[in-house]
Amino acid sequence: MKHLSRLFPGSYRSAGFIEKYQRLVKEMVLPYQYDVMCDIADGAEKSHAIKNFENAAKLLKGENPGEAFYGMIFQDSDVAKWIEATAYSLMRYPDSSLENVLDDLINTISEAQDSDGYLNTYFTLSDKDKRWTNLLEAHELYCAGHMIEAACAYFEATGKTKFLDVMTKNVEHIYKRFVTDGYEGCPGHPEIELALMKMYRITQNRHCLELVERFVNDRGKDPGFYAKEREKRNWTVWDTDPWDNVYRQSDRPVREQTDAEGHAVRAMYLYTGMADLASETDDKTLFDSCCRLWKSVTQKRMYVTGGIGSTVIGEAFSVDYDLPPDTAYCETCASIGLMLFASRMLENDLDSEYADVMERAFYNTVLAGMQLDGKKFFYVNPLECVPGISGESPTHRHDLPSRPSWYTCACCPPNVARIISSIGRYAYGESADTAFVNLYAAGEVKFKNGIELVCKTDYPYGFDVDFKILRGGKLALRIPNWSKKFVLHVNSKTVTPEIKKGYAYLETCDSDEIRLSLDSEPGFIYPSTKIPALTGKVALYRGPLIYCFEGIDNGGDVLSLKIKTDIDPKIIPDIFAPKIAVQAIRKTDTGELYSFKSHKIEPCEAIAVPYYTWANRGVNQMRVWMDAE
Amino acid sequence: MKHLSRLFPGSYRSAGFIEKYQRLVKEMVLPYQYDVMCDIADGAEKSHAIKNFENAAKLLKGENPGEAFYGMIFQDSDVAKWIEATAYSLMRYPDSSLENVLDDLINTISEAQDSDGYLNTYFTLSDKDKRWTNLLEAHELYCAGHMIEAACAYFEATGKTKFLDVMTKNVEHIYKRFVTDGYEGCPGHPEIELALMKMYRITQNRHCLELVERFVNDRGKDPGFYAKEREKRNWTVWDTDPWDNVYRQSDRPVREQTDAEGHAVRAMYLYTGMADLASETDDKTLFDSCCRLWKSVTQKRMYVTGGIGSTVIGEAFSVDYDLPPDTAYCETCASIGLMLFASRMLENDLDSEYADVMERAFYNTVLAGMQLDGKKFFYVNPLECVPGISGESPTHRHDLPSRPSWYTCACCPPNVARIISSIGRYAYGESADTAFVNLYAAGEVKFKNGIELVCKTDYPYGFDVDFKILRGGKLALRIPNWSKKFVLHVNSKTVTPEIKKGYAYLETCDSDEIRLSLDSEPGFIYPSTKIPALTGKVALYRGPLIYCFEGIDNGGDVLSLKIKTDIDPKIIPDIFAPKIAVQAIRKTDTGELYSFKSHKIEPCEAIAVPYYTWANRGVNQMRVWMDAE
Repeated sequence: MKHLSRLFPGSYRSAGFIEKYQRLVKEMVLPYQYDVMCDIADGAEKSHAIKNFENAAKLLKGENPGEAFYGMIFQDSDVAKWIEATAYSLMRYPDSSLENVLDDLINTISEAQDSDGYLNTYFTLSDKDKRWTNLLEAHELYCAGHMIEAACAYFEATGKTKFLDVMTKNVEHIYKRFVTDGYEGCPGHPEIELALMKMYRITQNRHCLELVERFVNDRGKDPGFYAKEREKRNWTVWDTDPWDNVYRQSDRPVREQTDAEGHAVRAMYLYTGMADLASETDDKTLFDSCCRLWKSVTQKRMYVTGGIGSTVIGEAFSVDYDLPPDTAYCETCASIGLMLFASRMLENDLDSEYADVMERAFYNTVLAGMQLDGKKFFYVNPLECVPGISGESPTHRHDLPSRPSWYTCACCPPNVARIISSIGRYAYGESADTAFVNLYAAGEVKFKNGIELVCKTDYPYGFDVDFKILRGGKLALRIPNWSKKFVLHVNSKTVTPEIKKGYAYLETCDSDEIRLSLDSEPGFIYPSTKIPALTGKVALYRGPLIYCFEGIDNGGDVLSLKIKTDIDPKIIPDIFAPKIAVQAIRKTDTGELYSFKSHKIEPCEAIAVPYYTWANRGVNQMRVWMDAE
Repeated sequence: MKHLSRLFPGSYRSAGFIEKYQRLVKEMVLPYQYDVMCDIADGAEKSHAIKNFENAAKLLKGENPGEAFYGMIFQDSDVAKWIEATAYSLMRYPDSSLENVLDDLINTISEAQDSDGYLNTYFTLSDKDKRWTNLLEAHELYCAGHMIEAACAYFEATGKTKFLDVMTKNVEHIYKRFVTDGYEGCPGHPEIELALMKMYRITQNRHCLELVERFVNDRGKDPGFYAKEREKRNWTVWDTDPWDNVYRQSDRPVREQTDAEGHAVRAMYLYTGMADLASETDDKTLFDSCCRLWKSVTQKRMYVTGGIGSTVIGEAFSVDYDLPPDTAYCETCASIGLMLFASRMLENDLDSEYADVMERAFYNTVLAGMQLDGKKFFYVNPLECVPGISGESPTHRHDLPSRPSWYTCACCPPNVARIISSIGRYAYGESADTAFVNLYAAGEVKFKNGIELVCKTDYPYGFDVDFKILRGGKLALRIPNWSKKFVLHVNSKTVTPEIKKGYAYLETCDSDEIRLSLDSEPGFIYPSTKIPALTGKVALYRGPLIYCFEGIDNGGDVLSLKIKTDIDPKIIPDIFAPKIAVQAIRKTDTGELYSFKSHKIEPCEAIAVPYYTWANRGVNQMRVWMDAE
């Protein structure tokens, strides 16, 4: 099997930058999100997510729950993502009392499962007869997918099979309907495909794989399916147009899809499942489709921060090169989805370009999704913020200048928690004889193939990466696309490794000390001249981090700054992390809306901070793309 | 009375540039629009506007019309605007057969009027009991306003009173309801206010003035009115939110309004009526409100082309400095409304800034609204067009790269026709002893105060304006804000006139020859640094014309051009009109979406054409605001 293990069955014990984030998730995010789900968090919107399971369990026991289902129709998935994140966190930070909380919750979930294996609190609490009548909107397969992922993570973290058993029973229920009984239709929101692939690799239950094939291969074959389904039922959730198949990537069979279209999160989850299936079954035409869609996303429709989804209308991709920084949607979940897609592409093809994008998305949009204290979250991640316009103009209402604490549609916060807690799975990978370092995540790593190492680095702020090899073997180190040069030392001697598709390969022995020195110079990124919104502009980067200019560091006004790209940026040490200074000119506003006179200009220094840290110091202007001389 | 006569009761016989446009309206636009209204124009959407009147007349005679009302609920206003435009056109080009067509149409209209004075084909053909139950949406007062304007124009053109009598009867019907009988409510779409002011000045019927005072002074006093109205009726047109008072400028009394908000056309028509009333009644607080709103529009929320309405959402103003060039709405009708507002501000205050804006709107957005052959029309006038994105991306769907021939909602084409046919009324003005030249429109002008002159000029392409004074008197010539210098000759001698609020005042005698030489140099316009969408960019102008860069003149690609503002632009003679060349650099796209390498650049010349002429040579890129070094 050619694919890297996505599940990274070895162990990763984080240190450094990653450990700080994993600790934040453990100490702040997970407890807060648990309180939210229990409806006891201050200032957050009511969630009721756990209560829904308790009430469903009561109803199935014949008791009167006394309350209706509350929340979005996919509220169950919040609980699933929280369990998944908590399970990953337990692997890094064992905690028996937290594990007890999980055990209790899983007990409740198991009690909320119907005798036929069905498990979804919305339908159990509202109307059993409506089950499976609304694949278009009802998110039953989506929620099942997240529950499956949670069950897999819980098993991996604790070895306990209870949740996996519950979800296996649920999968058999789904298998019966969609394979044995032959009911038509595919998920309105893809997700279960990638989840079933995870479960298949753990349980080897062929029904998982068959279901994925059923959902991937049948998708888009009958674009009229959802309209026919709509005609058969007398209820809707949002009165969704059943013919808007582009929105949910069901307008044509997946092997005929060429452009990344529609709802960005749905697209990413689907493409991830497709790439998973392609690597599992060596399906060349499916992989070709994945490659086309990957190129469409990353070469035509992706923001420089690894954000995707240019428009709030449908939370969706729009058209090639339509990448406005200020009205961007760039949902946090979509960039998490892009990381998933990238990781599965890497399974099919060991090319660093996939890891480059995975890194871009993680260190920029995904981390920006969470306030530095772990308490507040962005759903939408614009590349420009101008208070007075952002969040206020009708076309900018979704682009908020500061992170709210929780959302009615709370998909992003627990998604951030689970990706941070499991980042080792993306940072490292392995084949039978090789250990792959995709992202430079400090910590101790034990690969299943026997290789063991310790990685020390101040990445993403330091660019020397030191590996102490505990048990040797073949090592493949990704050379990032932003690193214009690198030096590799093995036991203090410079070596020139073999480079294949962006990875440096070298043989290592026990006790070897390896230092990879990547390019530490900041630099500018130049956008394609085909992107109308970005002509004349540049972005600043250092390492994997995209920088931005905030008002607070620049006299309150970044709009009047123009960057000089012919003078090298300068690193400025600071308490939390270094900032970057660039030479610039500042224009003096004439006070007129339009002036026949040019602006007065004066030279100045402009200060940039990493994009992921923006909006942590109050409401102020922010720009990633700056005018440049 | 301090106000200039807006109606310009003297006569203007156009020549030059204006005459070409008036002839186009006469020969192409009016016949085509008549055919559209008769449903016999090729390729246009069905209008049925005239048939609705014929059918209403039949019904009132007790005959069966055999057809339902067809079209938008305000379809009557298309006929009104066409009559108004045609009446103005008759003043320049007398045409007895066209006048007969008008007479017949007015006969039909008079027959479509109910015995109580009510006149609206939608309600007459559908349900009489619904009359006046939906001021929020039904456009009854709006249509009445346009019919009143048409009646005034027809009277002025022909001296015939029939239509004026019909509309006087209609006004008395409205007066009875809203004054005598004391029914509450104000127009959901303002328009009748400015129309009644026109009628008042012709007929001196005090009921007209009282109705304007009633509608202006009561507006916004009870923001709950439309919601209460909604509760009382069991029908809607578009299920409009009755609480969205900002959309229709009814969220607070007009004297408390400070920012230009809501639907841009409604705002302009309302503000015009307010300024009209303020000048008629010397109402200082009302004029103060007009001044605040004027500043809000022109100093914070107006495009450089005189376009207004930043967003398609509600066809509306958004917030200060939110002026994206590519997703602009800039409805043609809104810029016509801005001209009306400007002309009424000029009545209150003889300051050239009002005429500067009037000119900017006319020569750029309003003229751009019509194809050069008079056959197709833009409703929306963006300042940037990128085929592939414009008209296609969900956020750019309203910004079309070429003019369609007619619209279901056909408000703009006849509006363009009537403003062009009556442009003399805006170009010239007068007080008891002074003739004002606001816009430099070539032709023969007879003022009511006795002054007569002939104006010769190639304006807006030539900047010498020659006046031959036939009958002398005081002359006030506007010095445009774009003219950095000017020279005034009287009988070949240089004179230095008195300048007051941007007008040069001079006494003239019979046979005087006056030459005003305005600045003919092209130059750049610099946007406020507070406009996020325009930082780093400049626009090009010459005289009143804003220029744009189209792909067809620039190798198909204007996005990769960056203008050098330190080298003077150069005039290039061309067949139709001169173009302008500016020095620039062109970036070579790297082929990557984002590149760590800077673009290769090479110097080049970039060619600009007047904005109003764009999209006359096929679908191609267009930019007003260009990146600048």
